[in-house]
Amino acid sequence: MKPMGQVPADLTGEDGELLIAGRRVTDIVEQAGSTPLFVYDLGIVRRRFDALRAAMPPALSLHYAMKANPYPPLLAAMTGIVDGIDVASVGEMRLALSAGAVAGHMSFAGPGKRDEEIEAAIGAGVTLNCESEGEAERAFAIGDRIGAPPRLAVRVNPDFELKGSGMRMGGRPTAFGIDAARVPALVRRIADRGAQWRGFHIYSGSQALDPEALIETQAATVALAARLAEEAGMPPPHVNLGGGFGIPYFPNEVPLDIGRIGAALAETLELRPAALANTDFAIELGRWLVGECGVYLARVIDRKQSHGETFLVTDGGLHHQLAASGNFGTVVRRNYPLAVATRFGAEVEESATVVGCLCTPLDVLGNQTGLPRADVGDIIAVFMAGAYGASASPSGFLGHGPAREILLGN
Amino acid sequence: MKPMGQVPADLTGEDGELLIAGRRVTDIVEQAGSTPLFVYDLGIVRRRFDALRAAMPPALSLHYAMKANPYPPLLAAMTGIVDGIDVASVGEMRLALSAGAVAGHMSFAGPGKRDEEIEAAIGAGVTLNCESEGEAERAFAIGDRIGAPPRLAVRVNPDFELKGSGMRMGGRPTAFGIDAARVPALVRRIADRGAQWRGFHIYSGSQALDPEALIETQAATVALAARLAEEAGMPPPHVNLGGGFGIPYFPNEVPLDIGRIGAALAETLELRPAALANTDFAIELGRWLVGECGVYLARVIDRKQSHGETFLVTDGGLHHQLAASGNFGTVVRRNYPLAVATRFGAEVEESATVVGCLCTPLDVLGNQTGLPRADVGDIIAVFMAGAYGASASPSGFLGHGPAREILLGN
Repeated sequence: MKPMGQVPADLTGEDGELLIAGRRVTDIVEQAGSTPLFVYDLGIVRRRFDALRAAMPPALSLHYAMKANPYPPLLAAMTGIVDGIDVASVGEMRLALSAGAVAGHMSFAGPGKRDEEIEAAIGAGVTLNCESEGEAERAFAIGDRIGAPPRLAVRVNPDFELKGSGMRMGGRPTAFGIDAARVPALVRRIADRGAQWRGFHIYSGSQALDPEALIETQAATVALAARLAEEAGMPPPHVNLGGGFGIPYFPNEVPLDIGRIGAALAETLELRPAALANTDFAIELGRWLVGECGVYLARVIDRKQSHGETFLVTDGGLHHQLAASGNFGTVVRRNYPLAVATRFGAEVEESATVVGCLCTPLDVLGNQTGLPRADVGDIIAVFMAGAYGASASPSGFLGHGPAREILLGN
Repeated sequence: MKPMGQVPADLTGEDGELLIAGRRVTDIVEQAGSTPLFVYDLGIVRRRFDALRAAMPPALSLHYAMKANPYPPLLAAMTGIVDGIDVASVGEMRLALSAGAVAGHMSFAGPGKRDEEIEAAIGAGVTLNCESEGEAERAFAIGDRIGAPPRLAVRVNPDFELKGSGMRMGGRPTAFGIDAARVPALVRRIADRGAQWRGFHIYSGSQALDPEALIETQAATVALAARLAEEAGMPPPHVNLGGGFGIPYFPNEVPLDIGRIGAALAETLELRPAALANTDFAIELGRWLVGECGVYLARVIDRKQSHGETFLVTDGGLHHQLAASGNFGTVVRRNYPLAVATRFGAEVEESATVVGCLCTPLDVLGNQTGLPRADVGDIIAVFMAGAYGASASPSGFLGHGPAREILLGN
């Protein structure tokens, strides 16, 4: 048997069935129509947000990076919870606006913004996080043409990186942002050009589980913002400190101690340099807010033996949950936590490999996992499916079609 | 600079522009409407098919595994070229039938066929490649219910694997097929149950570039089919020998010598055991037939420097060409062949990293590739994009939307 991570503590069972938002999975599947199905529990998101709000400095804005999960009902709920929505394309921007997000509290980051995207963002009043001098010049020209000054923040490629981060995005050559050394000149250029300078966006990595690394990175980010502001000779109205808060997918990973991070950040902001005295700060979280609220449910279609190993073949697969198959940004495949949702809490009876229905050996949801005995008709739950699941998977692959999605809780 | 594989020999340039199907890429993009765009050249597919037909034994059926590329216009053309279409879902089956494929020359493989898929295949007269005894029993029951005997082939998990294969699918515990030792009993059960036994499907791996390995595997597959037929006491009407023919993506990989494989297979079939005297044989190819016919075109949106490295940011990315980003079934990322399509054939002038527009560091199309100097507006071509490209990528990720596709040539 190979190890699995922990099922999120918010998810429990009753009479041998997994409950999501207080409801049995079989009821949920019946309501949704069929498996495969993503279920999102808004209550989990709210509880996480409330804990975050309590842990973080009161003046800190808490933004949602919607790339983690753009499912419209969830997004609509998020607009009423968080202080702003950060988007990565004009497609996401339009979804967010139609879900009720306020343009003035939105930013748009991404290294390859097309002219029509820049124009749409300026027109809507969404802040563009500039990824290069060339992009800034295009924004000036488009602003001139449509008669609306762009709102521009400068995305900084910092001279450090978030240690222990699942994805490092700073401290090295990168397509994201502008090397710190060139930032002050661009800030002055933005001001000279009559655009509205909105401050800095400094994103150093994601999926970090070491609170010390996050604390150190946030302190370094504030210091960098102050130094750049001094060099530019202009105080930034706003600094987006990035995100990077991870969630525990695998064995021996533990949930982030957000209390410790919040206390340290409060101290960092308390002692911030004078150049940032009137600056508003934000963090943007995607995975940390919504990752644990999602469960991917797939039904067992076949149970079979091969060379002494048991396989549970489901109607789901990597076309819906690519990350759980280990084929999205991971080098070594490890098992996401999973369970037999219709025998939840039962003793482990066997080692079984849970696969999807795709005709490719890549389509593994759980490799030699310890499970109670599951039969055809049982439902498998793959946890940690609320972020980078349905929207980050190749739903057209092999013609099985997309998964259903449902939002529960309130 | 990091190495790249070879541009397919069928793709050449004229006056500094890449030609596809004899047409300049700028014309093609204009006709299609915009980048990002997949262009498929049917002429390349036809030439490859003709070479294959000439190399292989005349009686061998040549099937297309449509999972490689289900783009409807390409699929419709394929139905007029190949001898049969192999599908992996009822979604693919319906696409193939509506593209003109003949049900009697189709088979449906896949480990998690749902009851409604089995029913649809039986109703249409498509052969089901049975992946387990349980699936066979479900097919019998459904056949009884709808009053149509199923056409069933037995998918065998062979006791060997295709050496040097990109994806090994045999010789070990697997979700695919039935362990060879249990196959004869299932064949007899199919006959006893009054279903139409169509023979064997024996697939050992894919993306192999070593002709000796393929020759050895094909010989072992024929021997295994004969042994299983003898043990079952029934000659198989049909044996699908699988595929596995690879194409060269990376440096030092060379195209497969199909002449050698065809000659060896002719000899193997000539000398086949008596149990297979009246058996029809087929191979099923996806990637080999269509992989090289496709070119993914993305336009340079930004050109930027970071810590001494040049980045070309395009309007494409892993949401369309996940495999080229190294995030689909590969452990170590290597560069697919790519070129500046609007400066095709020009001298290498610099090292540049070509990225997509997604706000994730995974979105790399070419890492430190040697290219002529490209500027904003130039078009980048990523080759080997005809198989497992558009349909195997997370097109909804980050809200940029799917790529366009166009079929050229005839």
